[in-house]
Amino acid sequence: MKRVYLDYNATAPLRPEAREAMIAAMDICGNPSSVHAEGRAAKALIERSRAVVAEAVGCKPQEVIFTSGATEAARVLANRPKGCDVFVQDTAHDALWSHLDLSNASDRPHGPGHTLAMGLANSETGVVTLPPEKVENQWPYGARRADWLLLDITQAVGRLPFSFAWSEADMAIMSAHKIGGPKGVGALILRQGVDIEPLAPGGGQEMGRRSGTENVIGIAGFAAAIQAASRELSDGTWERVEKLRNILEERLVESAKETIFVGKKERRLPNTSCFITPGWKGETQVMAMDLAGFAISAGSACSSGKVRASRVLTAMGFDEVEAASAIRVSLGPQTSEEEIMRFADTWLKQRERHRARTA
Amino acid sequence: MKRVYLDYNATAPLRPEAREAMIAAMDICGNPSSVHAEGRAAKALIERSRAVVAEAVGCKPQEVIFTSGATEAARVLANRPKGCDVFVQDTAHDALWSHLDLSNASDRPHGPGHTLAMGLANSETGVVTLPPEKVENQWPYGARRADWLLLDITQAVGRLPFSFAWSEADMAIMSAHKIGGPKGVGALILRQGVDIEPLAPGGGQEMGRRSGTENVIGIAGFAAAIQAASRELSDGTWERVEKLRNILEERLVESAKETIFVGKKERRLPNTSCFITPGWKGETQVMAMDLAGFAISAGSACSSGKVRASRVLTAMGFDEVEAASAIRVSLGPQTSEEEIMRFADTWLKQRERHRARTA
Repeated sequence: MKRVYLDYNATAPLRPEAREAMIAAMDICGNPSSVHAEGRAAKALIERSRAVVAEAVGCKPQEVIFTSGATEAARVLANRPKGCDVFVQDTAHDALWSHLDLSNASDRPHGPGHTLAMGLANSETGVVTLPPEKVENQWPYGARRADWLLLDITQAVGRLPFSFAWSEADMAIMSAHKIGGPKGVGALILRQGVDIEPLAPGGGQEMGRRSGTENVIGIAGFAAAIQAASRELSDGTWERVEKLRNILEERLVESAKETIFVGKKERRLPNTSCFITPGWKGETQVMAMDLAGFAISAGSACSSGKVRASRVLTAMGFDEVEAASAIRVSLGPQTSEEEIMRFADTWLKQRERHRARTA
Repeated sequence: MKRVYLDYNATAPLRPEAREAMIAAMDICGNPSSVHAEGRAAKALIERSRAVVAEAVGCKPQEVIFTSGATEAARVLANRPKGCDVFVQDTAHDALWSHLDLSNASDRPHGPGHTLAMGLANSETGVVTLPPEKVENQWPYGARRADWLLLDITQAVGRLPFSFAWSEADMAIMSAHKIGGPKGVGALILRQGVDIEPLAPGGGQEMGRRSGTENVIGIAGFAAAIQAASRELSDGTWERVEKLRNILEERLVESAKETIFVGKKERRLPNTSCFITPGWKGETQVMAMDLAGFAISAGSACSSGKVRASRVLTAMGFDEVEAASAIRVSLGPQTSEEEIMRFADTWLKQRERHRARTA
């Protein structure tokens, strides 16, 4: 029986468009910083890719800084001057939380002021938090005099309509691999006029914002993936995926009435279902379903190895037992109804076994 | 006429082995941090690649930390505590020099002591500097009480025999694309027992040393490339390349007796020739040769856009005019004698034209 991949929020399979673009880019041998024809060809590919990413994200090409992923882009939070605090949304990704430690702040006199960092859509629950509006010059989450808003759009891009230009964000971070691009490439979107210290100093690539020879093949795949993802936003793909997600949840709750669907009453990503079966550990569920041929997760992929209750769920008010009993099923554009029904049947069977064991 | 690529020190064309490994890796869809079968397959590929890189570099697998390249790996210099100075070899790469600014140093109490950072082989001249030995607990280059040695092995790997285990280095940095791997991937080699702050905080990948979802496809290409490069070290490839480089220099000096070959009396990389034609600007030579079908460079690729005298050459004692009149020709394993002779003839013709114009 073919395995069923339902862990798109951890990473998506490489799109055929990305694959093709990457293989084509393998023939471009120059260093983008070189002035000769081979170098200019590599540079041109990067600049074409930058324009594609900018169009998809709704920003100007010069606002796109290619990085090795959202985590590196989040480093912009570490490059702040001393005294400029970062306020992080309680449900935001670890990559943002890790920069709360102020000991890295420099004595640099200029740069961003207080920064509020938050996710547009949560990876574990799919819950969408619209960028807040400043109220009386204050952001929520305890941030006072917060001059800048950093938005983690990693899970939202290609799944929700989003325009950086129309948002209140000053910076946004994202990874290519969540939308079917390669792992190891992403971007910092930096609003024109917002000045930052370089993410990485050195040779001066990416307009001096991020040194290091560019990941030419990865960037080509990123652009091809985001272009394909953008097309899907308007062709009804996600309405279909959302319908499947809802069918799944209805099917499960018919037989497993105690199931808690996290964020069901809030606005969620169309592809994500996070649900709690109190007392049945998420890790156990993931392993049982893996053996049965299904790839799902408990919590975010980064923390998969760690057996602990989800910080995101406890922040939402769930107790430790509930937070440790959650799994996340995240669908993709290729997910079929047959796969969803097969998942539901298998999960319900596993649940019966679990109940029999613990009865 | 087919173009001739003689800029291997800027970047090497992707090796067929790397291409094949990358295309195979495109079918592995999991996130290496995921616990399910798809995730474990991605993780296994990374660990196999880590073992291959470790064997090629002569270190333990757990000493290999994958990064987005040598520039990111050099960030280890920025993560030092306040008061722990960095001493940088005068001819080292900009990626090392950029960390001399101490304003990023943190108040963190523990970590590496004084660090000496140097290149094993220079990208512009090919000159090899053997890692110095500590003399009375001092490193050269003004470093006193330097506890750590960071070695930039980017240009040396795959071209010179090197073993991290046998070297005096505590850390080494490298990029995959100089040896025919993809751009955007590299490694920090960190000797066991040397403790550092994470290069990137976040999800905790790479043993907590470098967070961010791993560049799975790139890492697969890196391993395949370094494996192929290691084989070449023992099969006589570089002796052949060195012979071609020497043929080139002899051919040029026959007709252009004023040519200064930089570092000719020192130990050099077998593939590199850096030569000065006083008064004929390097940039002009690069452009003329590019139009004639040859890819070469003036200075390192990173600083190609900038028209200025090479810092490396002025550090070696050349004056501003001489330092601005240098070009670098760097050969690769595929370079043929026919290409070298064609280069020499074309360059000598361009030189005649230049002399005619300025006479």
